[in-house]
This record gives sequence, C-alpha cells and structure tokens, in this order.
Amino acid sequence: MPILRQEPLTGEWVIIATERARRPETFAPPKKEKKEPLPARVENCPFCIGNEHMTPPEVLAYRDKTSSPDTPGWQLRVIPNKFPALEQKNVQGGTAFDPASKWNFLESFPGYGVHEVIIETPDHNRHLADLKNSELALVLRSFKERLIALAKDQRLKYVQIFRNHLREAGASIEHPHFQLLAFPFIPPLLETEYRRSKEYYEEEKRCLICNILEKEKKIKERIVLENDSFIAFIPFAAPLPFTTWIVPREHASSLEVTKDGWEEELAPVLRGFLERISQKLGDPPYNLYLHLAPLQSDSLPYYHWHIEIIPKLTIVAGLEMATGTFINVSKPEEAAQFLRKQEASVGNH
Amino acid sequence: MPILRQEPLTGEWVIIATERARRPETFAPPKKEKKEPLPARVENCPFCIGNEHMTPPEVLAYRDKTSSPDTPGWQLRVIPNKFPALEQKNVQGGTAFDPASKWNFLESFPGYGVHEVIIETPDHNRHLADLKNSELALVLRSFKERLIALAKDQRLKYVQIFRNHLREAGASIEHPHFQLLAFPFIPPLLETEYRRSKEYYEEEKRCLICNILEKEKKIKERIVLENDSFIAFIPFAAPLPFTTWIVPREHASSLEVTKDGWEEELAPVLRGFLERISQKLGDPPYNLYLHLAPLQSDSLPYYHWHIEIIPKLTIVAGLEMATGTFINVSKPEEAAQFLRKQEASVGNH
Repeated sequence: MPILRQEPLTGEWVIIATERARRPETFAPPKKEKKEPLPARVENCPFCIGNEHMTPPEVLAYRDKTSSPDTPGWQLRVIPNKFPALEQKNVQGGTAFDPASKWNFLESFPGYGVHEVIIETPDHNRHLADLKNSELALVLRSFKERLIALAKDQRLKYVQIFRNHLREAGASIEHPHFQLLAFPFIPPLLETEYRRSKEYYEEEKRCLICNILEKEKKIKERIVLENDSFIAFIPFAAPLPFTTWIVPREHASSLEVTKDGWEEELAPVLRGFLERISQKLGDPPYNLYLHLAPLQSDSLPYYHWHIEIIPKLTIVAGLEMATGTFINVSKPEEAAQFLRKQEASVGNH
Repeated sequence: MPILRQEPLTGEWVIIATERARRPETFAPPKKEKKEPLPARVENCPFCIGNEHMTPPEVLAYRDKTSSPDTPGWQLRVIPNKFPALEQKNVQGGTAFDPASKWNFLESFPGYGVHEVIIETPDHNRHLADLKNSELALVLRSFKERLIALAKDQRLKYVQIFRNHLREAGASIEHPHFQLLAFPFIPPLLETEYRRSKEYYEEEKRCLICNILEKEKKIKERIVLENDSFIAFIPFAAPLPFTTWIVPREHASSLEVTKDGWEEELAPVLRGFLERISQKLGDPPYNLYLHLAPLQSDSLPYYHWHIEIIPKLTIVAGLEMATGTFINVSKPEEAAQFLRKQEASVGNH
C-alpha cells in the first residue's frame, strides 16, 4: 500500500509510491556516449577569463591584489545579470509596490529588485563538484557578502540564491555559476515556512528543524554524509527522488549569523554530496537553492537555514502542478543508503 | 523594466520578463520530422479495444446496450489504475489518517484513496483535440459521474482530475487518457484557493473569479475564445507561457452543481483551445487539470470551478522550485492575441 508523509516545514503531503517504486540504481541514466570534455576557456563565453568586458561591471570579486576590477586575475566574480528578471532602478513613486495590498486585481507593479550572477571559477569546465574545498568555501563566502550588502536596501525583503546544473535543469549558460535574485516581497512559499516554524516554536519552545535533526541523527537511515558542523540527509517526506537537505547542526537562521568558519565546514559536505550524485547517478541535472531568513531580520530562534538540492530525474506532471502534492517513486531511506555506500572505485572523478 | 503581477486566487507573484521576453511564435518548436502516424489499435496496449482483460474491471463505461462489461463495444471506460498512487483498501484502524494532527513528524500514514484512469476513446491515435464535440462531452460527463460516486466515501476529501499530454508532460501510456486521484485530505494548494476565495467573498460579498471574469470580459485582450457558457483566457498573472484557464460564465463551485448541459457547452471551447495550441505551437506537451470544490461540499458561493491548462514550453528551474515565484517569458496579452488570430490555413488538422 502506498504511504503518505507530511513535510512539517511546508505542510505539503507526499505520496511515497510502492506499486510504482523504483530501485535507487534505476535512476542513473543509461551510460551516455562519452562527450568531448569541455575546454577550460571558451572564446565567446562572457563568464570566461579575458572576457570581463562582456559583462556589466563586477559588484564583488575575489582577485589578486595587483589586478584591476573587470580584468583577469580573479578567482570569483559577482556581476549584475545582463538580462535581469528584476531591476534596482528608481521608479516614479519609489517602488510603487504595496505589499499590504491584498488582492491586486489587474495591477502591474514595477519589477524592482536585484538579479546577479556569481561566476564560481574562471574555468569553463570545472563544475561545483570539481572545485577544491577552499575554492568552494569562497563561493559560499560570496553569498554572505552579497546578503550583507543587499540588506542595506530596505526595499528588498528576501534573497534567493540558487543554481541550475545543466541545460535540462534550466542553465542557459554553460560556464559554472550561481544566481541570486533579491525580491521586494517575501515569496509565499517562504512565508509558509516562516509561519509554520514560528507556530511550532511558540507551541514547543524549540526550533522545528533542530527537532528534525535530533530525530534524524538518532535514526541515521536517511543521512547521506555529515561532519561536525553540517548534515546532508534525504528528508522523510522528500517530494522527488534524491531530494536532499544540507543543514547546519547548530541553530542559525541565516548566513550572517552562522558561526565563523561555516564556509570551510560546509564545503566538504556539499562537495561530497555533489560528487556522489555525479558518480552514482551519472552527473544528473539538478537545482540547488538556499532557504534563509528574510533580509534585515535579526537572528531568528524559530527559523533554521538550509540548502535543498533536487536532482532532475523524473518529470513533474499534471498532478503535481494541480495540487502541489508529489508522488515520489523512490523511498527516501533506500535513496540515502544508496548514496551513503562508498564505492571501491569512484569512476572518472 | 520587468513587471510583477499577483494571482489573486493563490496569492503567488509572477515576474513577467521584459529583458528576456520572447515573441509568441518563438515557442513553437522547430518543425519536427514527420512522425509515423499512430495506428488506431496497438496489439499490446491495455487501453485498446479487445484488450479489456488487460485492465482491472471497469467502474464506469459508456457502451452499446448489447455489450457486456470489460468487452468491446464501448466509447469510454473508467478503470482503476493497475499501479495506484493511492488505494481504497481497508486498513487497520480505518484510514489511520488524522488530518487534525498538525506536525506529523516521521509518521507514515496508509495511502488511502482512489486512482482511476479515464480511457477517452477506443482509438489509440485520437487525442483530445481530435474528438468530436459529442465525444468530448462524454469524457466530461464521466468526470461528473465519478465525482458523484466517489463522494459517497466520506474518507475522501478531494478529487483531482488531470491529463498529461505526451511523454514530455509525464504521460507514461500513449493511449489517450485522463487520470483521477481521490485524496483523503485537501491538498494545501487547494486549501489556499478556498481560503483566499472565502476571505474575498466575506469582504466583498461576491465571488473572486466572477469578479475576474467581469473584468476580463470588459478588457477582452486576454480572452482566447468563448461561447455563451465558457470563456478561455490567459490569466493576468499567468506563471508560464500560454497558461490558460477555462471558466464557466455562470457561478458554480463544482461539476455536480453546474447547470445541465454544461458538457456540451464546454466541449467546443476546450476542443477549440486544444486545436489552436496544437496548430500554432506544434502539438506541445501539456498538463490539464480541473480545480473543483472539495468533495461532499454543497454549492459554495465563494469558489468557482475551472480548468487550467499549462503547455510545457519552457523548463521550470531552481528559482521556481525554491520560491514558487515564476518568471514568465511571454506576455499574457501577446500570447492570447497570438492564439486568438484565426489562420486561413489550419495545417494538417
């Protein structure tokens, strides 16, 4: 008989399929033909070294002290998106955006906000899972720096940091990059997470995700890997096969209030997870994103930041679009066990 | 500058892209190689005529009076799904499902419910847009009959009727069919629609969608096609290119309480819409679903049932998964105008 599970953070129900369940190893695509390896630099790629003039001026960069902005000599660059989904332009009457207005029938508001690209590495052919821990820690550090900078604009309410890996997951540019979108409102899905976390905190006097972590640490069967500071696990009510959360063990509501050195601690867990799905699931496309407290909020006792990673292995169909209720054809416990197992040979990585 | 619009029914925000907008005609895929036409009957297809023994016994059929159940002679069959996502089995302690329980940490509930398949036609090669109006009306009638039958089980709370067109939209069986899933709870997305509609009704003393319809009828620019009883239009805050709603003009919260003859009135509008996207967008994959009042509810003054159709023309990526906020790269008004225009030649249909 199929199983129903509820995600406490969002309240969404998930159907864990039994009649149509698939073994973890069946999600790896059939061996692809060996693709030409990508070159380290692509002549017309705006994110490659030497092409800095092809992007808007950088807003943050980690670069050699002797180098000038928007020239080579960098390890990481953050730039405004050339085709922004939201824009930090002054509009008549400020943002003309009234979040208190409830119905907003047929009203168009200016798309005020910020859309940036984080170029993770000068190398066109090194994806997140290929970076050294120290390089990955720099990527994570840039998130925090941008959050602190963007928080100064009181019109911005929430920053979504996300990554689309491969074209099938929505990446339109091949060069490895994260994106960041700063909204003039809090997206309803995040509102729901904050509201439910707060309700739980008021009832139980503790953080909802701290409680989940405690239970997962005892049970162990859904944990993929961990170190002293971070745990990667497949949530009990994972909506899709291999959906994984990476969560700091110590309570923190956003990056700015996480204890110093978290970037170096997170890097090996994130990299370890990405390596495993790359090796065991054949470098699948994935979406990766951070769920953080709203901008300008102090340290919140009830909200616990985390990363969610969704490998794109199945098709999201009509039922999911219609109801938000997902059918997961992979048992979270089996998927975690599959990823946990260390292979003797690690393939071509 | 990009534009922000809010969907009053769900409260979700949508970014209408301007910097990265695409003209309506660019969504049609490059001309595919002409595929072999499908045969009218496929030997091993469980939904084809003569293969009735390959499916569980039918729960409803429209068939010649002289024919017996589960034999040829039918125009439409409704059968239980052989690999159900939810099952109507008696479980120890009833459904053991307590919807009042709020957090449900690490609790698995039996997947009680119903999963059925509506085989629209005996012909393997005639999709929804190819049916005659009278045949399509029969499909719609079967929805209502199943709703009435399923409402007798008080443990079922909501019935989701949906269709995945083509493999890229999640169809795993080629033979044309709808699916129906009856849940033992109301999915949160529907809860949100009911709650917001009710709030609006209490504040304004009228139905939210009746209000939207009145405005859309005046403005006209987002209407694709209509007749005396139904209107197909692209909503103001459509989350994805060509997302379309088909709505009864006269207020009704579900099929059972819609005025007699609605099936015959809806058929030409639905068929007309599907024909247009097939011709103008190259037979795209799509998801189609009905949003109805909960099972066992009386006629609700605040909720207005409707169909939503989402052609699958772009990739849902990390931002959408992370926030529920969509970036629509097609302006609803332009998309509607594009579909509204009648072509002199209608291609190969």
